[in-house]
Amino acid sequence: MSSTFIGQKLRLSIFGQSHSAAIGMTLDGLPAGIEIDPDELQHFLNRRAPGQNDWSTPRKEEDRPDFLCGLKDGFTCGAPLTAVIHNNNTRPKDYSQLKITPRPGHADYTAEVKYRGFQDYSGGGHFSGRLTAPLCIAGGIVRQELRRHNITVDARIAAIAGIRDESAFEASVADKAFPVVDDEIGEQMRAAIQNAREDGDSVGGVIECVVRGLPVGVGEPMFDGVENQIARLIFAVPAVKGIEFGAGFEAAELRGSENNDPFLVKDGRIETAANHAGGILGGITNGMPVVFRAAVKPTPSISRAQQSVNLTTMEPQELRVTGRHDPCIVPRAVPVIEAAAALAVYDLILGESIWN
Amino acid sequence: MSSTFIGQKLRLSIFGQSHSAAIGMTLDGLPAGIEIDPDELQHFLNRRAPGQNDWSTPRKEEDRPDFLCGLKDGFTCGAPLTAVIHNNNTRPKDYSQLKITPRPGHADYTAEVKYRGFQDYSGGGHFSGRLTAPLCIAGGIVRQELRRHNITVDARIAAIAGIRDESAFEASVADKAFPVVDDEIGEQMRAAIQNAREDGDSVGGVIECVVRGLPVGVGEPMFDGVENQIARLIFAVPAVKGIEFGAGFEAAELRGSENNDPFLVKDGRIETAANHAGGILGGITNGMPVVFRAAVKPTPSISRAQQSVNLTTMEPQELRVTGRHDPCIVPRAVPVIEAAAALAVYDLILGESIWN
Amino acid sequence: MSSTFIGQKLRLSIFGQSHSAAIGMTLDGLPAGIEIDPDELQHFLNRRAPGQNDWSTPRKEEDRPDFLCGLKDGFTCGAPLTAVIHNNNTRPKDYSQLKITPRPGHADYTAEVKYRGFQDYSGGGHFSGRLTAPLCIAGGIVRQELRRHNITVDARIAAIAGIRDESAFEASVADKAFPVVDDEIGEQMRAAIQNAREDGDSVGGVIECVVRGLPVGVGEPMFDGVENQIARLIFAVPAVKGIEFGAGFEAAELRGSENNDPFLVKDGRIETAANHAGGILGGITNGMPVVFRAAVKPTPSISRAQQSVNLTTMEPQELRVTGRHDPCIVPRAVPVIEAAAALAVYDLILGESIWN
Amino acid sequence: MSSTFIGQKLRLSIFGQSHSAAIGMTLDGLPAGIEIDPDELQHFLNRRAPGQNDWSTPRKEEDRPDFLCGLKDGFTCGAPLTAVIHNNNTRPKDYSQLKITPRPGHADYTAEVKYRGFQDYSGGGHFSGRLTAPLCIAGGIVRQELRRHNITVDARIAAIAGIRDESAFEASVADKAFPVVDDEIGEQMRAAIQNAREDGDSVGGVIECVVRGLPVGVGEPMFDGVENQIARLIFAVPAVKGIEFGAGFEAAELRGSENNDPFLVKDGRIETAANHAGGILGGITNGMPVVFRAAVKPTPSISRAQQSVNLTTMEPQELRVTGRHDPCIVPRAVPVIEAAAALAVYDLILGESIWN
Repeated sequence: MSSTFIGQKLRLSIFGQSHSAAIGMTLDGLPAGIEIDPDELQHFLNRRAPGQNDWSTPRKEEDRPDFLCGLKDGFTCGAPLTAVIHNNNTRPKDYSQLKITPRPGHADYTAEVKYRGFQDYSGGGHFSGRLTAPLCIAGGIVRQELRRHNITVDARIAAIAGIRDESAFEASVADKAFPVVDDEIGEQMRAAIQNAREDGDSVGGVIECVVRGLPVGVGEPMFDGVENQIARLIFAVPAVKGIEFGAGFEAAELRGSENNDPFLVKDGRIETAANHAGGILGGITNGMPVVFRAAVKPTPSISRAQQSVNLTTMEPQELRVTGRHDPCIVPRAVPVIEAAAALAVYDLILGESIWN
Repeated sequence: MSSTFIGQKLRLSIFGQSHSAAIGMTLDGLPAGIEIDPDELQHFLNRRAPGQNDWSTPRKEEDRPDFLCGLKDGFTCGAPLTAVIHNNNTRPKDYSQLKITPRPGHADYTAEVKYRGFQDYSGGGHFSGRLTAPLCIAGGIVRQELRRHNITVDARIAAIAGIRDESAFEASVADKAFPVVDDEIGEQMRAAIQNAREDGDSVGGVIECVVRGLPVGVGEPMFDGVENQIARLIFAVPAVKGIEFGAGFEAAELRGSENNDPFLVKDGRIETAANHAGGILGGITNGMPVVFRAAVKPTPSISRAQQSVNLTTMEPQELRVTGRHDPCIVPRAVPVIEAAAALAVYDLILGESIWN
Repeated sequence: MSSTFIGQKLRLSIFGQSHSAAIGMTLDGLPAGIEIDPDELQHFLNRRAPGQNDWSTPRKEEDRPDFLCGLKDGFTCGAPLTAVIHNNNTRPKDYSQLKITPRPGHADYTAEVKYRGFQDYSGGGHFSGRLTAPLCIAGGIVRQELRRHNITVDARIAAIAGIRDESAFEASVADKAFPVVDDEIGEQMRAAIQNAREDGDSVGGVIECVVRGLPVGVGEPMFDGVENQIARLIFAVPAVKGIEFGAGFEAAELRGSENNDPFLVKDGRIETAANHAGGILGGITNGMPVVFRAAVKPTPSISRAQQSVNLTTMEPQELRVTGRHDPCIVPRAVPVIEAAAALAVYDLILGESIWN
Repeated sequence: MSSTFIGQKLRLSIFGQSHSAAIGMTLDGLPAGIEIDPDELQHFLNRRAPGQNDWSTPRKEEDRPDFLCGLKDGFTCGAPLTAVIHNNNTRPKDYSQLKITPRPGHADYTAEVKYRGFQDYSGGGHFSGRLTAPLCIAGGIVRQELRRHNITVDARIAAIAGIRDESAFEASVADKAFPVVDDEIGEQMRAAIQNAREDGDSVGGVIECVVRGLPVGVGEPMFDGVENQIARLIFAVPAVKGIEFGAGFEAAELRGSENNDPFLVKDGRIETAANHAGGILGGITNGMPVVFRAAVKPTPSISRAQQSVNLTTMEPQELRVTGRHDPCIVPRAVPVIEAAAALAVYDLILGESIWN
């Protein structure tokens, strides 16, 4: 497996399975002297944590990071920073059938083949959405540090089940239990989630993320551009099946004269009149907000009957997934997307050399 | 800059500027003993090459790779493979104004800041679409080798200017001058391109790519999954602003019961009844075709007047981009997407260990 | 910091400080299905552990790895393998003076500058020799796996304080409390260590390591050769100041006709008549044992008075290092060298592609 | 193969075979705006070039780098820098026998196995010492840039055939045809080389390198320390079989009280009274000169009869290596060591982040 993100400076190692003794992360390459505000971090983690409201799984985990090393008096000390979350509310018996009857839309089958039967299938093992918790520890810390440099990373629900919130995304919605801009549309989304739950089904959605305050010149052409780097990290989030920057797929339908963002001078600074480029030209930030959207598929774990195959007999077998599942993971995925984006841009900034 | 792709096994270094003496690539990590069919490679490169038809720039370059090393009697010898294309039809004078008046939608401004005035702005320098030629050399070679293992990588135009070819993509369209499945729709697309040209404007589009024949189990969870890897390489192609796998952004509007692909047994093999997952579950191939689409923005170089800024005076300045430009790069980008996809999957396969 | 080894396939992240809550490691990239024999691993770790005999520090740590994840029923499951060792016998008060008066020969001063005062100076922090324990967890597991493929990794004390054991190194000395081939010479070495201890001083030595059973063809030319890879890992062991392969520095005094190892055929296999090359030609294994020696400097922590500087006043200051220290770390470093060597060669083997 | 050095910021790709159309290098990650003095670079390359005096091979190559891209008006432009040297004095017929009768001490046999017969065996192919020319292009450029920051990288012959120049190494010997400090000892070395030549034999030696002017705090603990990084690059130089830093193997015979370098204050700066540490503590520079020595084995190509094996018949076969060879490559390897060392330290400096 390659659960180690190798960035320009950061190396983020994420470890754990859904039902192992602990899950966690080591973040190596963080400068010394970064303060970690534990309350703010906990608030960030709570936004992702399950069991807090009606649209998420009733499994309750506190998601309290236990820092094993890398900190001294609340500041990073230059050594790798490791935090673990102990798994204490595991119910491995829920998953015993999945080794021979893989869940559609899940990694059960591909893991069975790849790891030749040795994988830890309980709760999805290392493929579980639970592994986004350590990603949020790393990203939450980095997001704090970015804000100290006046760089903000904020995401919101842009759509659920086809219901779109097309309001402008000006201010953070991090304090909302349901992170949309337009709460009325949010109500419609929640109703759609509730309907899906009642049908033993699930829905997906789109998350939009905006990074403000980046200087001009972050990123590189070709393989280490801002888009490459963000995409590489965002596709580490389970269930993401697409990403677009700025106008994205819509840009493909525009003419150049519409899609090109005219340059202008505002307050003595170069800006662009629109932001179809999503803040990125040639892989490099242009000083405008970096904007992207990620498509999140509907949660594959649904209680409705589905068609699978018994891998032992190679006969068709109907499957009903039991256990605790979110009918929609989009709300909880919002801070995860922020975490991944924060790591992406922070690492690119750290990669800028003192001698450049 | 980071124009070196560091894969599991492959290291691809792409070098050159639009108007430097040569552009080229070094592909390191290729096994010894791979045959290169030069005619097939040239055919592949010609699909990308400019100046061949009415919808592309009249700049003519032969794009003939000159292999400096790494080959012995037509087979790779284990040493790094380097090929260059000499630039002999350069007209640097076309671009002299761009250093102080950046083109909207281009990297002129971001490069000026990042490289503090030292960048080679002629013809877009290292940011030029011309640098996709060496990517095609590398990818064209790898695509040949994949086919020897019955793995095919084929792309097609899925949409241009909002005109969509929704025909099933069953067979390669590599031999078509205009690579669509439905030629009638292709005619409409070409008309849209022609209209844009006449308006001194440009159009974008969507390219779909299908990789068939991959075994189950290629890729890794988290940061080195098939989606991460393909996305990282596809965003190295200039003008790509989005990517989606399988049902992609549409999946975000489906329910789980619709989006999950039921497992079934066919000819003794596990397959899925649909392919919303685009052949990837948990970052790992499931044996179905890997399918993705890339959004290509309209060519930013248009001859219509655009608003820019004079970086010296910081005054607004109208800009008319002269020189030779495609009103639509989508047709020529089709083999580029194939090249990037071929490199992505081949590298993941090479990364599979003998001892795994 | 960069405490993450990025190999061909393996990513080894080592974390912890001398007196943090825990130290540990995550090994990512290990194939699924590798059995871990916990007793053998504990025996391996005990060879490194302190407090077990008269030549090492009286600080007692059990060095029992607690596996947090990556294992299922005693076999690796494909997910990252994380193990921690809880620090429960820490005495941070011993080290309070070192932040302002750096110990000669230690990283106190360089860490103070690099981490701008934020480093964890207690017990040497992340620079402590204690961090070789997690290296031994990773290496010990890999060494077990290599032996299942008939590849053995064995080290021995070749010299201490200038007293050399020049006996041929044919069989493992892993079961000896003092790992030399010639026990009489070992007695002399122990006497030299005892003398140093009585003088409040320390001694260094040389460790030789032999890897037997490697196939021909492991490694690569240039930057990823066997020598590069082993050296990169061996210099991660604190106190190592030199490495040589085969005849090494002595080769520099030989003639080509003496140093070249003639080829011959033995039992139908190509061998060499001597092994001045240390089993490596052009960075690639030639089927002979891989042999190298590492120079270990005398432990810098000595109780004798030493000259240092008070970093606050910039005045000279005499320093007497208190606390618990080995007068010679060479015996305990023997398994550490084995661990680093095992990781180096195993990773190179894993890097060999199924399609090569 | 992995002939791509992946540093903190730099990616150096070296390509070519002894008798391919060209050899060369791409250096990616170099900041924009670095001036290249072509005369000084040529002087540097000439120090390595063959055919210039009585102790080196009569093969004459001009070793003139042809810069294909990455430069604009004599300054780096931020894009990858590629330079090639065309091979025009190749005599491939010299080497036809080596595929079936490998030369002792060479990579012929290991390459034959690894590349399954596809390798380019002419002149040693990619394993040829000729490939150090592109390393010197990269290193020569970087060494110029370091000197602009008052960091100097200088090497000298410390020993040949056991004859040692133990003079202090205070000033560069780069302008000497035979780069020793003590010319009288140099004469003895040259006599030893001449003797070896007359005997159809060869001799090796030791090269010492000193890097002065590095700030305190360059490098990292564990896997990316200064020693790890330098060793990784130095072992890319063919024929190097050992490396030691500071007191190195001699430190292994000292006591801690002798080997520890006392701290003192000089001109308001922290220094050490001696430099047994070779300027490195805990993998990090301490502000003293970085000093290391590399052991170079005697050139394996000798004209005396040697014992080999016919790989086709598996019968013993006597081999006489014809062609043009240096009886001692140590003098020509001096700038190669400087090049590798310059790349190592420059990359570590570039890796220091603006935000650190």
